[in-house]
Amino acid sequence: MSKEVKIIFQPSGRIVHALPGTVILEAAALAGFIIHTPCGGTGKCAKCIILIRNGKCPATEQELTALGKARTEEGFRLACLARITGPITIEIPENSLFQTHQKILTGDTGETRDVNPRVRKTVIQIPPLSPHETRSDLERLQAAGVSVPLTFLALQSLPNVLRSSNGLLTVVQADQDVIALEPGDTSSSCYGIAFDIGSTTLVGTLVDLLTGIDIAVAARVNPQTSFGDDVISRIQKCRGEKGGLMQLQSAILDGINRIIDELERKTRISRLSVYEVVFAGNTTMQQMLCGIDPSALGELPFTPAFRDALEFTARDLPLHVHPCAKITVFPQIGGFVGGDTTAGIVATRLDRTTEPTLLVDIGTNGEIVLKHGSLLLATSVAAGPAFEGARITNGMRATSGAIEKVILDGDVKLNVIGNTKPAGLCGTGLIDIAAELLRVGILDVTGRILPPDEIPATLPSALRDRLVADKGETHFLLVPKTESATGSPIFLYQRDIRELQLANAAIRAGINILLKMAGLEASQLGAILLAGGFGNFIRRNHARRIGMLPPIPCDKIRFVGNTSSFGAKRVLLSTQEKDYAARVVGQVRHVDLSLDPDFHLEFSNSMLFPEAE
Amino acid sequence: MSKEVKIIFQPSGRIVHALPGTVILEAAALAGFIIHTPCGGTGKCAKCIILIRNGKCPATEQELTALGKARTEEGFRLACLARITGPITIEIPENSLFQTHQKILTGDTGETRDVNPRVRKTVIQIPPLSPHETRSDLERLQAAGVSVPLTFLALQSLPNVLRSSNGLLTVVQADQDVIALEPGDTSSSCYGIAFDIGSTTLVGTLVDLLTGIDIAVAARVNPQTSFGDDVISRIQKCRGEKGGLMQLQSAILDGINRIIDELERKTRISRLSVYEVVFAGNTTMQQMLCGIDPSALGELPFTPAFRDALEFTARDLPLHVHPCAKITVFPQIGGFVGGDTTAGIVATRLDRTTEPTLLVDIGTNGEIVLKHGSLLLATSVAAGPAFEGARITNGMRATSGAIEKVILDGDVKLNVIGNTKPAGLCGTGLIDIAAELLRVGILDVTGRILPPDEIPATLPSALRDRLVADKGETHFLLVPKTESATGSPIFLYQRDIRELQLANAAIRAGINILLKMAGLEASQLGAILLAGGFGNFIRRNHARRIGMLPPIPCDKIRFVGNTSSFGAKRVLLSTQEKDYAARVVGQVRHVDLSLDPDFHLEFSNSMLFPEAE
Repeated sequence: MSKEVKIIFQPSGRIVHALPGTVILEAAALAGFIIHTPCGGTGKCAKCIILIRNGKCPATEQELTALGKARTEEGFRLACLARITGPITIEIPENSLFQTHQKILTGDTGETRDVNPRVRKTVIQIPPLSPHETRSDLERLQAAGVSVPLTFLALQSLPNVLRSSNGLLTVVQADQDVIALEPGDTSSSCYGIAFDIGSTTLVGTLVDLLTGIDIAVAARVNPQTSFGDDVISRIQKCRGEKGGLMQLQSAILDGINRIIDELERKTRISRLSVYEVVFAGNTTMQQMLCGIDPSALGELPFTPAFRDALEFTARDLPLHVHPCAKITVFPQIGGFVGGDTTAGIVATRLDRTTEPTLLVDIGTNGEIVLKHGSLLLATSVAAGPAFEGARITNGMRATSGAIEKVILDGDVKLNVIGNTKPAGLCGTGLIDIAAELLRVGILDVTGRILPPDEIPATLPSALRDRLVADKGETHFLLVPKTESATGSPIFLYQRDIRELQLANAAIRAGINILLKMAGLEASQLGAILLAGGFGNFIRRNHARRIGMLPPIPCDKIRFVGNTSSFGAKRVLLSTQEKDYAARVVGQVRHVDLSLDPDFHLEFSNSMLFPEAE
Repeated sequence: MSKEVKIIFQPSGRIVHALPGTVILEAAALAGFIIHTPCGGTGKCAKCIILIRNGKCPATEQELTALGKARTEEGFRLACLARITGPITIEIPENSLFQTHQKILTGDTGETRDVNPRVRKTVIQIPPLSPHETRSDLERLQAAGVSVPLTFLALQSLPNVLRSSNGLLTVVQADQDVIALEPGDTSSSCYGIAFDIGSTTLVGTLVDLLTGIDIAVAARVNPQTSFGDDVISRIQKCRGEKGGLMQLQSAILDGINRIIDELERKTRISRLSVYEVVFAGNTTMQQMLCGIDPSALGELPFTPAFRDALEFTARDLPLHVHPCAKITVFPQIGGFVGGDTTAGIVATRLDRTTEPTLLVDIGTNGEIVLKHGSLLLATSVAAGPAFEGARITNGMRATSGAIEKVILDGDVKLNVIGNTKPAGLCGTGLIDIAAELLRVGILDVTGRILPPDEIPATLPSALRDRLVADKGETHFLLVPKTESATGSPIFLYQRDIRELQLANAAIRAGINILLKMAGLEASQLGAILLAGGFGNFIRRNHARRIGMLPPIPCDKIRFVGNTSSFGAKRVLLSTQEKDYAARVVGQVRHVDLSLDPDFHLEFSNSMLFPEAE
């Protein structure tokens, strides 16, 4: 097995580790950089230019063609093609970075990321204590212009802070509250963390609240997954088990606190300098994080506990940041349309687009928002964890060893993350193989893998030989045991296709219902914005081929990255963005598909793969 | 050893346990009732009438004389003379109870104890959930008229509270905040606890916030005493030891939480129905309770951290009551004049007296407040723990086995608490023996116990034989070993008299300085109010004889009980009283004796006992 190597990104200096063979696009995503890939990462558009500053990175033929010999010799590469071979330093030019709203959405150019956080620091000097002083410490602090009351913890520190650093101290205020007093001048250390809390993945971004710059990103699997892949099974645990909610809350908190620990380790920035944390997640995750029983989300009328943003302090949970840090949980739209969707709208400025636009966030739950005129419709569908690799026989998450790309070109050609032997199939690989099997005629529109005697005679024997009949079903051999990392063959089973069909149909049915409610045809859409960590790696033509997305031109399908994280970061950095999020929630109409008589029909129709275009 | 018996007080139904032999006056104090004893508990004034409802209690000759045969047969007794012999039910008539401000202070009659606490409960009915409901739980609660935001804990409980008891729920509000939501109608359970936190003793009173009635009282030794008798040694521990403050805070919190546990055990009232707690104590205790470093109180200019009342919530400490209970810590006057003194003024309405009045609270610290015209002067003296039995060779607290009264009448006559064999000497016994030794001529005004050859020849040999010479000093045998509970003799040593002189002189010097500042002679005082659990049991003529109090008529020296507890209870019960406390603090002038050049002179003078009157 090869070992992970160190990758430094400039100008931020951010460091990640990845296996040799990793595509630079992916390594950048690990570091929290979403590089602009309008062609879907196929090497065609040549927009994802990066520059190798240090270390080896041989240019591919395609890069030589796209960039020319001179530029490749200077060190320029395409992030979607170039692969890590050893320790390396990479510069990402500003215009290769994905600019969430400026590049994607119309009518919203020129906006910059405002830095106007709730937390600010002021340095003050308290005059020396006279032997005839009769005022209390608190009265002396007030005389220096500090508003009271302080938080209890700030008060506890008061006598000692006043008596160290010769009376020089830093007042940390959040809105009107004094949340901390620190000896000396600490005004240059003021941080926040924006969290995307997904059912499957937790992502935290440490942000400098003075400059608005991202310092580091860390991600982990949500430890709740050990209690069930999807939110429904976890809600059932809360309903059925005494202490179930507490177990689930502890699990997600543990994951979040480990991310905070990791951010501290990576950056050497003390967690006690983190004064604000913003969370965006679906309704179930947000309620479980707060320890609010989500049982009512598991039965009609699927009532969330709250709608407006929640605010409390770090020690309420408790989080491993400054105990008086201000915590914001995103406002929720309703039912299963949670704070992550609100954050998605905030990040993309979806409400301000001039063309009909669809925002689709694909995760274990799929959230879909349609903007058309003054209408903002939002819904949520249970896509299940198939795209995260769960419930797929040889499924796995998009980590080292995962087959992330499949091409049927006479035989099976695979791309494996980390350039190692394949160990399983991740979401994008699953979509690829289904789309390719449809293309060559091994899979029919009902989702049946055809037995060898039913497939087109023109099919190369290399593919035909991979079909294995088993109790009336047919499975497809992706990797023989001699080539797999595990020593066992990797099959795509008939039942895996069924899982994919369910996930696929849920998303497509949701899209169709919203379009219908708005009186729109798919062809009228100006854009589909694909959000989510997974969404960013989907091959758009394949997503269209299997019917997950409606048949619109690929250049109208745009990747917008982890909008839940991006939206959370915006709110972290600016009180105006927080107000914007609060307003947006009021504008969105929540569509509950469980109450929609058309949904089951649309869902059944969408179970069929589309005929070839 | 005899066992404690059950004593029920009516009409409150409050229950305490005490040893047979206990005077009813004391048993009532255990239950938190301060019975009016203008004569100082000598059986002379016959004001402390109580009625035996059930159980035996033989009348003394003195009671027969004072009350007459008919009334004693009806069951009337004098609380200061009658003793417990077995299980008993006692009724305390309203006019035998000490009415803190009404009976003592002029110009403040007719005032009743207001019941207008910060905490109130409202019962509401939430309409049943419709299957088409689109609002969140919080929005439904708001629609029922409940103001938001809720505390985080109340929010956590929201979904389950709304779904139990058919939507009937009780909203607990403190000021404007909703601190709890409880399923069903719990409106009849609303309690608070008032705490007196002394350097040596902690007293908690559980109060019904609906009626203002005391439910139960519990007291414990402050566990901090194991780290030092007086506040100075404890402040030194905070200054000198890392973690010292945390140890001291844990100790006092532990004592307080054990009192809360005891109140719950005694009354079966759940601690979770306690929504408000008020603390009154000296500056050091108040800061240590809050975990605020008191080191600055140990050096010039003796600066407290705060002056105005502190407000926070139970889980900030944490206290074993409702986690969102509102905590108030009394406003402090300055230096060592803390919240207990403010509470004393609130309890006695000292600021509203028309005659010059002195409030003296005798504990480990002695606090003295003088009211004269518009002047309110307050100071604190370090009396030391001699009156609490500490630093006295055979000293002990005023519990079972303590000699609490001494009469030299030919021989030594003792009263022992609990009517058992004597084990040691408590504060009142110490004052008694000193006053009696002065009277008979065994002790001279310098505080020297005279050797047998120097004492008056007229002294009975029974007393003379008790004098024991030892290395140039003389000690007085109080109890021979055959009669003591421990099997060892109980002596009053010369050094014990020295300890008493120090404590005595500190209080008297403080009184003299304040009188001087106000331009008053002691004879001009309209009243001296003696406060504190100990103050209530002092024999006034003896306190005057040893010079602790100035020579004014005994009927002007009045017992006002534990004013720190009483004041805390007033603030617990009414927001107006809280405002009053805040105003009073602004009117008091803090006198720092350490800065007063006259203090050392006054102190030296007061070390001498007065000549016989």
